Amino acid sequence: MVYVAGQLPRDGDKLLTGRCPDEVSVEEAARRARLCALNVLAQLEAAVGLDNVLQIPQLTGFVLSADGFGDQPKVVNGASEFLVDVLGDAGRHARAALGTNALPFSATVEIVAVAVVRTS
Amino acid sequence: MVYVAGQLPRDGDKLLTGRCPDEVSVEEAARRARLCALNVLAQLEAAVGLDNVLQIPQLTGFVLSADGFGDQPKVVNGASEFLVDVLGDAGRHARAALGTNALPFSATVEIVAVAVVRTS
Amino acid sequence: MVYVAGQLPRDGDKLLTGRCPDEVSVEEAARRARLCALNVLAQLEAAVGLDNVLQIPQLTGFVLSADGFGDQPKVVNGASEFLVDVLGDAGRHARAALGTNALPFSATVEIVAVAVVRTS
Repeated sequence: MVYVAGQLPRDGDKLLTGRCPDEVSVEEAARRARLCALNVLAQLEAAVGLDNVLQIPQLTGFVLSADGFGDQPKVVNGASEFLVDVLGDAGRHARAALGTNALPFSATVEIVAVAVVRTS
Repeated sequence: MVYVAGQLPRDGDKLLTGRCPDEVSVEEAARRARLCALNVLAQLEAAVGLDNVLQIPQLTGFVLSADGFGDQPKVVNGASEFLVDVLGDAGRHARAALGTNALPFSATVEIVAVAVVRTS
Repeated sequence: MVYVAGQLPRDGDKLLTGRCPDEVSVEEAARRARLCALNVLAQLEAAVGLDNVLQIPQLTGFVLSADGFGDQPKVVNGASEFLVDVLGDAGRHARAALGTNALPFSATVEIVAVAVVRTS
């Protein structure tokens, strides 16, 4: 079991910030969730190699949200779909999509994941 | 180990929404947390059968909260007590009760659980 | 695997409350995160004994945050550094630092941890 630290969306060196949906659209936030998932995969590649990832049993996505915003699932889909695209069945996961009023550096999304990996 | 996706409170087909305590009372929110826990059990029954649940080691409850609201533990008790009622000792869990300003579809509560199950 | 329930910051019997950074400074919030981590260790000592803690694979810190506050990592560092100080390499962890508008009793920080322990 590998726990991946909370991943934020980066475009090169730039952290992507702002609240959904008043500062960042749902579509753009979903693209940023996908960038978080890319960072999850980069962490797993560095730690154990993606070939050794057997399953992503849990993914939790926190979306920086204005009061009353409720489309977090659409945003976190950006991460979920990417993991399945890259890893196939191994990328399917139990998921929680959540909102919050504040995230580190005002990042738009933060993704936390757990992976089951082959260790021998 | 089975990770259960985030469960929202439903009454039949209707999603139960609104913020605690200004739109939904603590008592009603606790009832909704219990409905989330019922959905956790329904997921576990479908996945492995409740007879095979050995333990619920972790339960995390997010309550849609007005600023300054601090009675999340009373709300999440609705879920905790239900799991112990149904599963007995196997339903006892380490718990985190948290608040947030935004949840999917403005649901009042979202519950995330981890279960240890018998697999043979 | 031991899941530790969400720990709040206490000074003796007193729960430490208030939002960061408008009611509680980042430095004071980090001190409170450290107190949460102390409670995590107290729970682990009571459950299995700290000598039997092999690793803290995951730590999640929720900081009671004003809208737009983004220094949650600095706050949660108070917990992370303390775990490494006490447990050495066994205290290193994958971490998620998150903000929220509401926590139980308006506590400043809540810390959730997972530990891998020796059981024989």
